[in-house]
Amino acid sequence: MDRSIELGFANIDLQRRERTGIAEVIYGAGKDADQIAEIARQMYEHGETHILITRVEGEKAAYVNRKLSEVDIISNIYDDAHIIVTGGNHKPDGIGRIAVVTGGTSDIPVAEEAARTAEFLGNEVDRIYDVGVAGLHRLMAKVDIIRNATVVIAIAGMEGALASVVGGLVSAPVIAVPTSVGYGANLGGLSALLSMINSCASGVSVVNIDNGFGAGYQASLINHTGKTEK
Amino acid sequence: MDRSIELGFANIDLQRRERTGIAEVIYGAGKDADQIAEIARQMYEHGETHILITRVEGEKAAYVNRKLSEVDIISNIYDDAHIIVTGGNHKPDGIGRIAVVTGGTSDIPVAEEAARTAEFLGNEVDRIYDVGVAGLHRLMAKVDIIRNATVVIAIAGMEGALASVVGGLVSAPVIAVPTSVGYGANLGGLSALLSMINSCASGVSVVNIDNGFGAGYQASLINHTGKTEK
Amino acid sequence: MDRSIELGFANIDLQRRERTGIAEVIYGAGKDADQIAEIARQMYEHGETHILITRVEGEKAAYVNRKLSEVDIISNIYDDAHIIVTGGNHKPDGIGRIAVVTGGTSDIPVAEEAARTAEFLGNEVDRIYDVGVAGLHRLMAKVDIIRNATVVIAIAGMEGALASVVGGLVSAPVIAVPTSVGYGANLGGLSALLSMINSCASGVSVVNIDNGFGAGYQASLINHTGKTEK
Amino acid sequence: MDRSIELGFANIDLQRRERTGIAEVIYGAGKDADQIAEIARQMYEHGETHILITRVEGEKAAYVNRKLSEVDIISNIYDDAHIIVTGGNHKPDGIGRIAVVTGGTSDIPVAEEAARTAEFLGNEVDRIYDVGVAGLHRLMAKVDIIRNATVVIAIAGMEGALASVVGGLVSAPVIAVPTSVGYGANLGGLSALLSMINSCASGVSVVNIDNGFGAGYQASLINHTGKTEK
Amino acid sequence: MDRSIELGFANIDLQRRERTGIAEVIYGAGKDADQIAEIARQMYEHGETHILITRVEGEKAAYVNRKLSEVDIISNIYDDAHIIVTGGNHKPDGIGRIAVVTGGTSDIPVAEEAARTAEFLGNEVDRIYDVGVAGLHRLMAKVDIIRNATVVIAIAGMEGALASVVGGLVSAPVIAVPTSVGYGANLGGLSALLSMINSCASGVSVVNIDNGFGAGYQASLINHTGKTEK
Amino acid sequence: MDRSIELGFANIDLQRRERTGIAEVIYGAGKDADQIAEIARQMYEHGETHILITRVEGEKAAYVNRKLSEVDIISNIYDDAHIIVTGGNHKPDGIGRIAVVTGGTSDIPVAEEAARTAEFLGNEVDRIYDVGVAGLHRLMAKVDIIRNATVVIAIAGMEGALASVVGGLVSAPVIAVPTSVGYGANLGGLSALLSMINSCASGVSVVNIDNGFGAGYQASLINHTGKTEK
Amino acid sequence: MDRSIELGFANIDLQRRERTGIAEVIYGAGKDADQIAEIARQMYEHGETHILITRVEGEKAAYVNRKLSEVDIISNIYDDAHIIVTGGNHKPDGIGRIAVVTGGTSDIPVAEEAARTAEFLGNEVDRIYDVGVAGLHRLMAKVDIIRNATVVIAIAGMEGALASVVGGLVSAPVIAVPTSVGYGANLGGLSALLSMINSCASGVSVVNIDNGFGAGYQASLINHTGKTEK
Amino acid sequence: MDRSIELGFANIDLQRRERTGIAEVIYGAGKDADQIAEIARQMYEHGETHILITRVEGEKAAYVNRKLSEVDIISNIYDDAHIIVTGGNHKPDGIGRIAVVTGGTSDIPVAEEAARTAEFLGNEVDRIYDVGVAGLHRLMAKVDIIRNATVVIAIAGMEGALASVVGGLVSAPVIAVPTSVGYGANLGGLSALLSMINSCASGVSVVNIDNGFGAGYQASLINHTGKTEK
Repeated sequence: MDRSIELGFANIDLQRRERTGIAEVIYGAGKDADQIAEIARQMYEHGETHILITRVEGEKAAYVNRKLSEVDIISNIYDDAHIIVTGGNHKPDGIGRIAVVTGGTSDIPVAEEAARTAEFLGNEVDRIYDVGVAGLHRLMAKVDIIRNATVVIAIAGMEGALASVVGGLVSAPVIAVPTSVGYGANLGGLSALLSMINSCASGVSVVNIDNGFGAGYQASLINHTGKTEK
Repeated sequence: MDRSIELGFANIDLQRRERTGIAEVIYGAGKDADQIAEIARQMYEHGETHILITRVEGEKAAYVNRKLSEVDIISNIYDDAHIIVTGGNHKPDGIGRIAVVTGGTSDIPVAEEAARTAEFLGNEVDRIYDVGVAGLHRLMAKVDIIRNATVVIAIAGMEGALASVVGGLVSAPVIAVPTSVGYGANLGGLSALLSMINSCASGVSVVNIDNGFGAGYQASLINHTGKTEK
Repeated sequence: MDRSIELGFANIDLQRRERTGIAEVIYGAGKDADQIAEIARQMYEHGETHILITRVEGEKAAYVNRKLSEVDIISNIYDDAHIIVTGGNHKPDGIGRIAVVTGGTSDIPVAEEAARTAEFLGNEVDRIYDVGVAGLHRLMAKVDIIRNATVVIAIAGMEGALASVVGGLVSAPVIAVPTSVGYGANLGGLSALLSMINSCASGVSVVNIDNGFGAGYQASLINHTGKTEK
Repeated sequence: MDRSIELGFANIDLQRRERTGIAEVIYGAGKDADQIAEIARQMYEHGETHILITRVEGEKAAYVNRKLSEVDIISNIYDDAHIIVTGGNHKPDGIGRIAVVTGGTSDIPVAEEAARTAEFLGNEVDRIYDVGVAGLHRLMAKVDIIRNATVVIAIAGMEGALASVVGGLVSAPVIAVPTSVGYGANLGGLSALLSMINSCASGVSVVNIDNGFGAGYQASLINHTGKTEK
Repeated sequence: MDRSIELGFANIDLQRRERTGIAEVIYGAGKDADQIAEIARQMYEHGETHILITRVEGEKAAYVNRKLSEVDIISNIYDDAHIIVTGGNHKPDGIGRIAVVTGGTSDIPVAEEAARTAEFLGNEVDRIYDVGVAGLHRLMAKVDIIRNATVVIAIAGMEGALASVVGGLVSAPVIAVPTSVGYGANLGGLSALLSMINSCASGVSVVNIDNGFGAGYQASLINHTGKTEK
Repeated sequence: MDRSIELGFANIDLQRRERTGIAEVIYGAGKDADQIAEIARQMYEHGETHILITRVEGEKAAYVNRKLSEVDIISNIYDDAHIIVTGGNHKPDGIGRIAVVTGGTSDIPVAEEAARTAEFLGNEVDRIYDVGVAGLHRLMAKVDIIRNATVVIAIAGMEGALASVVGGLVSAPVIAVPTSVGYGANLGGLSALLSMINSCASGVSVVNIDNGFGAGYQASLINHTGKTEK
Repeated sequence: MDRSIELGFANIDLQRRERTGIAEVIYGAGKDADQIAEIARQMYEHGETHILITRVEGEKAAYVNRKLSEVDIISNIYDDAHIIVTGGNHKPDGIGRIAVVTGGTSDIPVAEEAARTAEFLGNEVDRIYDVGVAGLHRLMAKVDIIRNATVVIAIAGMEGALASVVGGLVSAPVIAVPTSVGYGANLGGLSALLSMINSCASGVSVVNIDNGFGAGYQASLINHTGKTEK
Repeated sequence: MDRSIELGFANIDLQRRERTGIAEVIYGAGKDADQIAEIARQMYEHGETHILITRVEGEKAAYVNRKLSEVDIISNIYDDAHIIVTGGNHKPDGIGRIAVVTGGTSDIPVAEEAARTAEFLGNEVDRIYDVGVAGLHRLMAKVDIIRNATVVIAIAGMEGALASVVGGLVSAPVIAVPTSVGYGANLGGLSALLSMINSCASGVSVVNIDNGFGAGYQASLINHTGKTEK
């Protein structure tokens, strides 16, 4: 049986939870505020109380928030992550903790998207920011926290070397996120992406440039290995 | 304390097991048969009985095999995977099973590299080959096996669409491996890589083109989440 | 005999209809509103009553519309498609129907450009939107409508996998349209383009990124195979 | 019900005919001669008498041919097209004729792959070779034959301008095939591909570099518009 | 002896005329209006009465114009060409005429930059605009004018096929100018550039994307072959 | 009237001389020796006594040469240029001389293709080889010869800087030829091509990588400006 | 012992001086004015009196300047270089002088970033601007100053030929900086970068596009060879 | 006065020593063995006793060696470096030592080219091989040797992260050499090149892919800062 809601502009996948264990996430980019609010409302009315909306910020986020409160749906805006959450995070029930590591200060918005996503999906997160490889001792000072994680998300722009260095330090899988941070020959993040894909460290896989959400999502899957309903 | 063996041409990392939980793997490409055999012998003498050698085939693999047997090290050649294993696979102790899925027949060597790597590292593997998206019913006929896995490795060349389709069908993390299979605008696998990195399905991350080893390695890490010694 | 109108800035091809069966279409991008209105007026005065203007929107479209009404030419603006039509659509006289399928909500403007173009050129169109491959059941729920078409237009951004999946499901030719929807390594639509060009499904050909018009136009030609005047 | 034959290395799609109207085609590249012969034999035993095998040539083609004749399957080798056909071509039943046009002499192998594919699938084909745009009068001398076609396949390497020029001359849909013919900045055919994708002529769509088969296949679909069983 | 004027921000090359036969041209992009005016003034004071300033438009051009008139230098602004000329054009003394041909209306600014540059340098110019290859008869209607030229400048965006078609029609050298006109896979003009560089027509050479000036300059050199002082 | 010879595999353009002033040139790459000899024979029989065949070398060139002598056509092989000429060069009747300049020793085959082509077409040529910009004084020692030319062909691989330096030294038009000489990030000549296209010197235009023929051909056109029959 | 200051958004590396001889530099892009001021203040309080802040300009630079003066830290803004310096430059103690050479006027901001960085780090700098290779005599007029330097920084956009020409003229190491100056096929500076990386001159190495700071920094290291504390 | 020897195929720059302090080096790729031997002989006869020949190996190197001994020039072949040296190395007279560091075993040929070049030019070299960032402790075990160098050459393929990590550990300038070691998305070394160009560490500059010679040459210049004759 097909269980989806057709809104004309969108086709909401209600079967997603039973198919993949997680309800549909609303990707806010390329949708206007009214569309986002309407999708969220429809999901809520069909029984999804915890909803994650990504790539919304500033005025647009505030508007969605107001729209939702008009129909009595309580939502939080996480400005730094460009994320809205309704119904709060899922209760942490992962195998271990997730470490989110960044090379620089400018990578933090992507890191927060990853961290908030993972927290929403029921994970505990450690944030280790601005520990790029040009100052290894900053990274080494935090290596115990990183090694304690069951999954590590390594986020870096420029040359993206962080992924390889972290990959060589830990026994957990590493999800690498290239960012568009940098200039010139960074090619909008493509250089970091290529760097991470060619990592000499085993155990590193890569998601799209600036895709904090994707990293947080997969990290959560990994941190629930064997636990996700099938 | 530094625990590595210096051979002049190579610097074997004996600390690797305690740092990452898995002994160093010998990447056979770019090393000659004598170098490979010598590295394996040294590792063996320093207590590594289970050794994985990748990217060796044909004459070169046979030579390494002979060299090792001369010093009483028993090794198996897996031709289809371009892999040599000494001391047999590690005992399966993963959380669940790993599914290795390919789009076509030509992707099988990469798939076998992934499958053999995962088996070496202590995992049980299901192989589902030649189920590309142009004939969805072939994939759907195997969907139960795929959904039963705790990690899925999706391997495809050409347009690499398999990763997204599989990603939308399962609740487990998907490791996507683009292959160099195809011609013309496949750009040696880069088109499939870009396709997989841009996947509209959540829970998909990507390794290098033809990197079956890397996918099998990370899949094993995931299938041992919370179990790898730290 | 040369039958074209020279306006200095443009050289209107009046012979086009007899050469290709369809009057010249006005591509609005890179022309200002006055130029567009003047070309349309000239075509109208030379006997073209049905005129299609693409890539005009908002203020510019309204201005063209007003200019045309000043010389008693009635035109409709299709905002969602960035299209203006004078004289209404041609009467539907195709062999069958055209299906326009999109992967996501953000692909809709391109889809509407394709659908409106096809309708203008005398075709009946079915719209099936937001049925991306990450939720296959949404697509499968519509497969009968899609299989009923004589031509299918498959529109998707990100990894563009929709084209291959649809290509494997139908017996009609598929025109694939990559869109610039996505971010990071989508390379402004180039990743989807490469993906579609490398499609493992037979019967798929590709037009330029975001080229809804081109897809609608070719789909119309196909839906009139053997009927177009020569 | 799943109707496919599993050979371990391949998964033959017997449902394909009813799903898409055409039996599976064997893509010979990346398969060895024994695999190809075995797939053909299995298809034949399951009732497919007309079988098309592409991308086989020289020794390999001869070997397949011998293997098939050992099990009493008669096959023809078309050397120039790198194609083997068993059971002869399907009876021509298209709406009209298909024109295959090339820019140069070196494009002929791709053109023959297209032409033989179309003939196999039940179409009559006109071949117009070596009429590149640097000598327009050669093309114009054949324009009547080209205009008489219901579909045109335009094949060119180097700058690929043929597609646009042909597209402007005819009222039929044009399938453009970039070839890898050329050198230097032709980027292995990518320059011609980009050129064709950016064609200023309406009604042109594009398949992969050197993909004569894909063009012949889609041209056949178009030439049977409204006739393919669904 | 070094004959240049140092302004700190610029180093004006007064020797250029004797070395290359033509005085330095002021490239306005990347210089502010005051810098441009000052360079022009210095050149004027050192005896250069005919000065060409490119890539200036709107407000900036008007400002330069005013600044020059304040020091009694008369200059004309050619808005359509983004060019300012002081002292009028050089007297036409070329071998023949230069034809400037464009594919579309949107290419006209680049064409005007070429045409005005050539006129400034002492050439007579024929403008043939909007005669793209998708409507060959428009081009053929003007072929006599084009064939009458001693040099042809062919300007086109999108797939840039105009260069090859024109190259095949004339006995004069053709300077091809790719433009950034187009969208999607036009890659900002790179597709047209690649197309033109790979031209199957002999006698075609290429300048940078949108470089009307460069084309007009070289065309002038060619039209003065054997006449330029050395 | 169409004046071309159809050979099935080729369509010889006999009208080319009257249209462009120069008979068709046989591009030997991608044609086998028999095809080349047959085309040459046909042209000869239709009155073309001076024939240029490019991109033939070694065994293949010798075979063509023998084949032609069998039908009493005398041809010379220029090994260094990969060129065969029948009937000798055209009598020099250019406006001035053509200078062919290379950056290094490895660029010489391309340079000879250019020089021999120009000589065939009736030009006198000066060869100035191995004067790359890393040793400017070598170039400056020859500057008088270069400045004496009416056209300069600048040929270089690696970074292709020669084109700009030469462009700044002369008053004649410069045809730049990037070569595939170099390694690593030379991208098979693409880096030199980009460098030359972006030349800061005016009066430089560019042909395809390693396209000595194209440069020689256009240089000849320029050296005959106003003289080529129309 | 780890000596770094954690600010949440940044992790200041106080050990940097003893590890690399130079205190951390604040890269202003991607940080807001408050973050920059706070980092500078913290460094100051921990004993760093000479602080370099790059990539700050206009309003943002003024704000940082005011914020610092509020806590009694005196800073100078170098507008042309987009740099702020606190505590003045380090005393010049280099082996020799550093020459900063540019191809054009538009390269000056990058040059000033390099020059100011070098001066801050204790070097004397000669500025030689707008001496591009299209007018070699301008460069040759300054060759004595350039040859007198112990390190040369060569800065150019467009085709970046300056690096090779300078590299061939001097016995000192050359740091090449490609700039994004240019248009069209300059690819945002990538063409100049490729050109410089492929330089035929020995002794040239390259930094990122527009990376004046990186060039100035490395030039200073070189000018202090054997002097930097270890 | 021009002091160069013209051999027709080559133009030997005898002035190079006085201009740049170092005699011309013979780049063996793209020259045949006889050309190389002849150039070396000519240089020797004109007083250059120490000659460096790069990119020669195996049979070709042996042939050059024999040819030189026939004219009583003694030369050594360094197989691992693909280098021939006549007259031995220059006496070490650098400021300090040069460290050559590689990520892996496969990078050694490039490293040896760098090391032998530096030794030839009068430097003492430390070799630290196979210390890639995936096993940081191997690098840290050698950090004292590396920190002791006045210049560091960091050589790595794949993701090239070594350059940034080393750059953060030392106070000396780092010359980074990307290698073509790797596969798939390593793009023949381009990924490592981009990674190194985008290095987040200051003090790193980059030479061409596999350009060990260039790195050794520049390192020598740096190690002789202030000492090279001018």
